[in-house]
Amino acid sequence: MDSEQLREYGHQMVDFIADYYKSIESFPVLSQVKPGYLRELLPDAAPKHPESLQDVLNDVQQKIIPGVTHWQSPDYFAYYPSNSSTAGFLGEMLSAGFNIVGFSWVTSPAATELEVIVLDWLAKMLKLPNEFLSSGQGGGVIQGTASEAILFVLLAARDKVLRKIGRNSLEKLVVYASDQTHSALQKACQIAGIYLENFRVLKADSSTNYALIPYQLHEAIINDLSSGFIPFLLCATVGTTSSAAVDPLSDLGKIAKANDIWFHVDAAYAGSACICPEYRHHIDGIEEATNENTVVDFKDWQNPLGRRFRSLKLWMVLRLYGVENLQSYIRNHIKLAEQFMQLISSDPRFEVVAPRTFSLVCFRLIPPEVGAPLTEESHVKAAWKVLQDQATILLREAAGKHE
Amino acid sequence: MDSEQLREYGHQMVDFIADYYKSIESFPVLSQVKPGYLRELLPDAAPKHPESLQDVLNDVQQKIIPGVTHWQSPDYFAYYPSNSSTAGFLGEMLSAGFNIVGFSWVTSPAATELEVIVLDWLAKMLKLPNEFLSSGQGGGVIQGTASEAILFVLLAARDKVLRKIGRNSLEKLVVYASDQTHSALQKACQIAGIYLENFRVLKADSSTNYALIPYQLHEAIINDLSSGFIPFLLCATVGTTSSAAVDPLSDLGKIAKANDIWFHVDAAYAGSACICPEYRHHIDGIEEATNENTVVDFKDWQNPLGRRFRSLKLWMVLRLYGVENLQSYIRNHIKLAEQFMQLISSDPRFEVVAPRTFSLVCFRLIPPEVGAPLTEESHVKAAWKVLQDQATILLREAAGKHE
Repeated sequence: MDSEQLREYGHQMVDFIADYYKSIESFPVLSQVKPGYLRELLPDAAPKHPESLQDVLNDVQQKIIPGVTHWQSPDYFAYYPSNSSTAGFLGEMLSAGFNIVGFSWVTSPAATELEVIVLDWLAKMLKLPNEFLSSGQGGGVIQGTASEAILFVLLAARDKVLRKIGRNSLEKLVVYASDQTHSALQKACQIAGIYLENFRVLKADSSTNYALIPYQLHEAIINDLSSGFIPFLLCATVGTTSSAAVDPLSDLGKIAKANDIWFHVDAAYAGSACICPEYRHHIDGIEEATNENTVVDFKDWQNPLGRRFRSLKLWMVLRLYGVENLQSYIRNHIKLAEQFMQLISSDPRFEVVAPRTFSLVCFRLIPPEVGAPLTEESHVKAAWKVLQDQATILLREAAGKHE
Repeated sequence: MDSEQLREYGHQMVDFIADYYKSIESFPVLSQVKPGYLRELLPDAAPKHPESLQDVLNDVQQKIIPGVTHWQSPDYFAYYPSNSSTAGFLGEMLSAGFNIVGFSWVTSPAATELEVIVLDWLAKMLKLPNEFLSSGQGGGVIQGTASEAILFVLLAARDKVLRKIGRNSLEKLVVYASDQTHSALQKACQIAGIYLENFRVLKADSSTNYALIPYQLHEAIINDLSSGFIPFLLCATVGTTSSAAVDPLSDLGKIAKANDIWFHVDAAYAGSACICPEYRHHIDGIEEATNENTVVDFKDWQNPLGRRFRSLKLWMVLRLYGVENLQSYIRNHIKLAEQFMQLISSDPRFEVVAPRTFSLVCFRLIPPEVGAPLTEESHVKAAWKVLQDQATILLREAAGKHE
C-alpha cells in the first residue's frame, strides 16, 4: 500500500470510471453476451508475474463491460433502482481507504459513533418517533442488505418467543405477510428454521392497491390460535418490490400489539420517499413497530463479525446533497413516474393496474420513483416507445393466431 | 452521477486517501478518543443545503481520523491483519463504480462468470483437488465475511441431515470443533437453531500446538451416538485466530466420513499462506472436505439477495501482483515473524507457547504472517521494545507487591 502508487493508480481509475459514466448511454443496457463467454476470453490460471494497470483496464473495457448489465444507465428500468451517486461513490472510496473492521467500539470509535449519529439524522428526516432515536429506546444500524435486516429481526423475534414458551416449540411459530412481500422473508424463515407451511402468505389484490387487509390478518391469527399455533411475527411493507403497495401500518400494528406479535416494517423500497412531508403519511403508524433497546456492539446486531466503515457513505450523501436536494430528487422522479402514467393512460391497449400517489406499476417498469439518477424525461419516453412497439407486435401476432 | 463532477471529486478523494497513507505512521495506532466524543463535534441533524467536499474532508481530517484505529498502520498488531493493498483498493473502486447487483447471471453476466473463473485460479494456486474446481463437483463463491461462509455451510449441513431424519430432530444435532475455533461457529449455531449444549467444544492444548486431537473427536462421536444424538458437522481450522493452530485435516476428515458428518475446513486465517509450496502441506487432507455440487445462482449461496461485483477485487490483486509476488510477500512476513520469535527467545522473561513452522504466538502479537503490508523489520522491533518495557514495569510492580 505505497501511497504514491496508490495516488497514481487511483487517479487512473477515477478517470476510467468517469469515462464509463460519460459513455454509459452508448452501451446496450442489458448485456448481450452468451453464458460462458468470459472463460474463452481469460487465461485459465492467475499470472505468475505482475501486469500493468493499463492492461487490466483494457481487459475491463473489452472483456468485462460487454458482460455488464448497466444498472446505472438512465435507460435502466429493471428490477429496482440502484441509486448510485457521486457522494455515495466517494463514501465507498473513503471506507475502502481506511479499511477498518468496525466490529466493536474500540476497533475504530468513529465507525460506531458516526453510524449512530447519521442514523439519528435519518430518523429525524423521516420524522420517526423519538423512541426510535439512539437517545430513546432505539437507534439504527446499517445492515449489508435488506435481507440481512429481515433475518436479524426474525431471529430476535424467534428467540424472544422461544425463551418464553420453550425452544422445542419451533414448529408452532407462525409468520404473517402479504403475497407482495419480498422473498427475503421466506429465505429468512428457512434460515431460522421456521416451518414454511407456517408462513401465512395473505393474498392482496387490486381492491386495496395490493395492500394487506387488516381483517384478513385478524382472521388468520384467530384461526391459528385456535389450532394451537403461536403467531410471533408480522412483516408489513412500505413499497413492495413487485407492486409498490403500502400496507396500513396503524391498523396492522394494533392487531400485532393486541396479540403480542413482533411487528416489523420493511421500508427498504419506498421509505426514502417519506423524507418529503407530502409522502410522510405512508409511514403513519410506524410508532407501532417493535423497537427493543439493546446495548450497541454492532457485531451483535448482524451475522458477520467484521464490518466496513459503512456510515461514511450515508454521511457523505447527506452532507454533499443536503436534505432539500434529496427531497427535490425524489419529487422530480415521482413527476417522471406521473408523466409515464399519463402516457399509459393515453393508450387504450394499456391499463394502469395499481395507481398510487407516489408510484405506479406497469410491467414492473416503474418503482416508487423512476430510477437511476441520470434518468430524465427523454429516457422515460424512449422506454414507453419500446413498450408500445412491443404491444403492437404482440397484438399483431395474437391477431395472426386467431385468423 | 455526473461524470465530470465524479472525476473532479474522485481525484480529490484519491489525493486525500494517498496523503492519509503517507502520514499514517504519525497517528497513534489505537484511537485515543473517549466514548461519545463525536456527538459533541457534529450537528444533531442533516444539513438542509449541500456542503462542499472540502468541508467534509476537513471534518474527516479533524473529527473522524482521531476516532480511527489505524488497521493499515505498519505498527498495527492487534486482532488480525486486515491485508489492504493498492490493487484491492482499485478493485473496490471499480466495483463501486459499476454498482451492479449481481444476484443472478443475467443481472450482469461478467459478475458471476469472473467470480467462477478467479476462484478457479485461486483453487489452482492452492493446489486444491480438481473436484473443487467449477468444472468438477465444486466451484467457489466470495462470501461477504468468513462468518457468512460458516453460517451457510452449517445451514446446508443442517437441512441435509434434517431432510433425512425429519425436521423435528433439531434438538439432537451435534456440532464438533476445538476450543480454538472462531466464535463465528457458535453464532452460526445460534442462528440455525442448533442447541448450544450440543456444540461440542473439544479442548486443545500445547501438547499438539493447540490442534484438535482426532481420538478426542472419535470418542465424543461414539459417546453422542450412544446417547441418541446425531453428529452432523465437524469444523476444522487451518490457522485458528487465537493460536494459529492447524487441525490435522486428513485424520479428522476420515473420522467425519466414516460417521457421515459434514466436514468443513475454515482456512480464512492461514489458508492464503498455502499458495507457497513449502506451506501447502498444512492443508493436506483438504480433499476430505465436504464439497457438494449445485447449480450456480449466487443469491442461493448466501443470505442477501444483492451482491457487489466482488470478484473484481480478487482479480485485480492477482493480476497486478502476480502469484510470485504474492508468495514473496508471504515469505517475507513469515521471515519477520521468525525474527520476532528469535527476539522473544533471547529474553528469558518470555516463553514461546506454540512455535509453528509459519507462525508463532505471543500475546497474540503475531498472526500466521506478521500483518500489514507496510510492516517492516523496524516496526516489529519497535513492537518488541514496547512488550519488553511493559514486562519490566509488570515485573517491577509484582516485585513491589511481594516486598
